[in-house]
Amino acid sequence: MLVYGKNVVKEYLTSNKRIYQVYAYKEFDDKEILNGLKDIKITFLEKYELDKRVKGNHQGIILEVEDFKYTDIEDIIKENGTIVMLDHIEDPHNFGAIIRTCEAAGIDGIIIPKNRSVEVNETVIRTSVGSSNYMKIALVTNLSSTIKYLKDKGYWFIGTDMDGTNYRELDYSGSVCLVIGSEGNGISRIIKESCDFIATIPMKGKVNSLNASVAAGIVIYEAMNRK
Amino acid sequence: MLVYGKNVVKEYLTSNKRIYQVYAYKEFDDKEILNGLKDIKITFLEKYELDKRVKGNHQGIILEVEDFKYTDIEDIIKENGTIVMLDHIEDPHNFGAIIRTCEAAGIDGIIIPKNRSVEVNETVIRTSVGSSNYMKIALVTNLSSTIKYLKDKGYWFIGTDMDGTNYRELDYSGSVCLVIGSEGNGISRIIKESCDFIATIPMKGKVNSLNASVAAGIVIYEAMNRK
Repeated sequence: MLVYGKNVVKEYLTSNKRIYQVYAYKEFDDKEILNGLKDIKITFLEKYELDKRVKGNHQGIILEVEDFKYTDIEDIIKENGTIVMLDHIEDPHNFGAIIRTCEAAGIDGIIIPKNRSVEVNETVIRTSVGSSNYMKIALVTNLSSTIKYLKDKGYWFIGTDMDGTNYRELDYSGSVCLVIGSEGNGISRIIKESCDFIATIPMKGKVNSLNASVAAGIVIYEAMNRK
Repeated sequence: MLVYGKNVVKEYLTSNKRIYQVYAYKEFDDKEILNGLKDIKITFLEKYELDKRVKGNHQGIILEVEDFKYTDIEDIIKENGTIVMLDHIEDPHNFGAIIRTCEAAGIDGIIIPKNRSVEVNETVIRTSVGSSNYMKIALVTNLSSTIKYLKDKGYWFIGTDMDGTNYRELDYSGSVCLVIGSEGNGISRIIKESCDFIATIPMKGKVNSLNASVAAGIVIYEAMNRK
């Protein structure tokens, strides 16, 4: 997998992820990055050769790194823990921003479904500014059976949707799993029915919709502040 | 200005913005939109002709509408009001998401600077899902003199940055202006020095950075909940 951009590369230098290859622009001169890579052979290239390798703005530095390693769900279970479950988020920018929020807020792990969902790809890693390196993410076959499994382990489920309880008035103590719906459709009916509570962000405008990663951020920080 | 996509077009149908032209895919069949446009002549085109007109996913419908009209700063001043000032946000997706949050949260208006800042363009309108139609946005020449002007009108200034007071512990009563920094650099020094308080979102991770629109959403909702 290729990752790129100065901030993402810096996160890889301090993480324990394996770096297989380094491609840099011939005139690349970020000392911090070059020092961090001093034990690894760097292939210096022309700008157009770097441009060919990735679609986004590489800022003169591209790493080939080990693929993202998903976590087993057992490894994110904790007493009084907080997990975030994403019910089919499709936009890699939203996924990346949510990983960033979860890492900063101290969430134990993220659960995503295998199908019809964005996985941890290059765009997600870049948008997460490398915080995906420090976040446990579990990829599960079936969200409903995962909910059953976590309920047996003592987790309460709080979905985010309209027509629920004001998110400020809910109790977030104990082990909690926050479920965030997809951009277009929100939480699916079957998942919503499995939730113990529905957290609603009150809205006072005419359009009244929030970006999925913004809504997730508001509820995640509320839960972590109230733990 | 061209706007496109079904959700954005639906917002334009219920707004009081002028629609000059409509271009639709020959087989476009969204009844709600076609009924809403029944008094306007629609030019039906092949898909490739629509593709040529805009860069994004038009979903078969493009409107030519009046340009975005900025508000005079006097029109967003209110007793016990809340204004959001953006200190050089550059990413149109972040700007659009912040407009969406402000509209849902009931913010009175947004202030952006004329230079080195994204303006209200097609991408911003699309990302805001049309909520820019209902949000007062003032474009000012100089943020520092605007701060002085608003302080004279009784506004407190709360910036968002590191090393300040926990955002949950601040007082948001009275007339407040929340200042959100740019994606890369946060709030500029001179603007930060003009702020009465700095609101900090506590972070517990290793990367510890939030997407600008997520951070804005967390502080904006805190302020509006605590008004």
